[in-house]
Amino acid sequence: MELDFKFTSDGLIPAILQEYTGGEGAPRGRILMFAWLNREALEKSLSTGLMHYWSRSRQKLWLKGETSGHTQKIHRWYVDCDRDVLLFEISQTGGACHTGYQSCFFQELDMEGKSLPIKEEKAFDDSAVYKK
Amino acid sequence: MELDFKFTSDGLIPAILQEYTGGEGAPRGRILMFAWLNREALEKSLSTGLMHYWSRSRQKLWLKGETSGHTQKIHRWYVDCDRDVLLFEISQTGGACHTGYQSCFFQELDMEGKSLPIKEEKAFDDSAVYKK
Repeated sequence: MELDFKFTSDGLIPAILQEYTGGEGAPRGRILMFAWLNREALEKSLSTGLMHYWSRSRQKLWLKGETSGHTQKIHRWYVDCDRDVLLFEISQTGGACHTGYQSCFFQELDMEGKSLPIKEEKAFDDSAVYKK
Repeated sequence: MELDFKFTSDGLIPAILQEYTGGEGAPRGRILMFAWLNREALEKSLSTGLMHYWSRSRQKLWLKGETSGHTQKIHRWYVDCDRDVLLFEISQTGGACHTGYQSCFFQELDMEGKSLPIKEEKAFDDSAVYKK
């Protein structure tokens, strides 16, 4: 594989996850989450077609959806002009956020930084999926 | 302002910049760039309505578009579930990328990491705008 990207001094690269909505010319999808990959997570993601990440808190590789079943299938991916950020367009099973929402970016703010009312329902019951 | 976000130990927070395409229910826009803000850049962005960033290489605050005129007007913004990543929906004048492309994510890759042919024209003449 040709993975000559600019990883951080910790060996990580950030990734933006965007909902895949279809082929050329289709409207773009919602931003679902943001996460970090190391080289191993990237290789595993590309070879399996399913997003894998590096957990900085648990210091381990994880398959997104390994607990919840909410996997992320890769359709297209891009690198930015500086080769230090990745963008993946994916199909998300269930919801991307551990809180139960479709996207981790469900909280809109006003121009003072105050939280606005959340305008959507949860995509799944997080208490059942993660057995809290 | 209520900016109780999780900044890094360097006092920074990452931001995803997405093209604003309209009000509720409109299709979402393209991801234009990824950058870092400190608290001052965030306050300045919110008070002026134009994106300001913290340059890690130059160690200074900058108004996006101060050289190129390609400013970014804020329409909506969101924080993620962990309060450590921001998402701004913006209107971009000219193009977001210093290379002349509309988005910094113009380079699609195949599943081996090889660059695919670029499918778009530049949005502006970067050699003229940045007077290289």
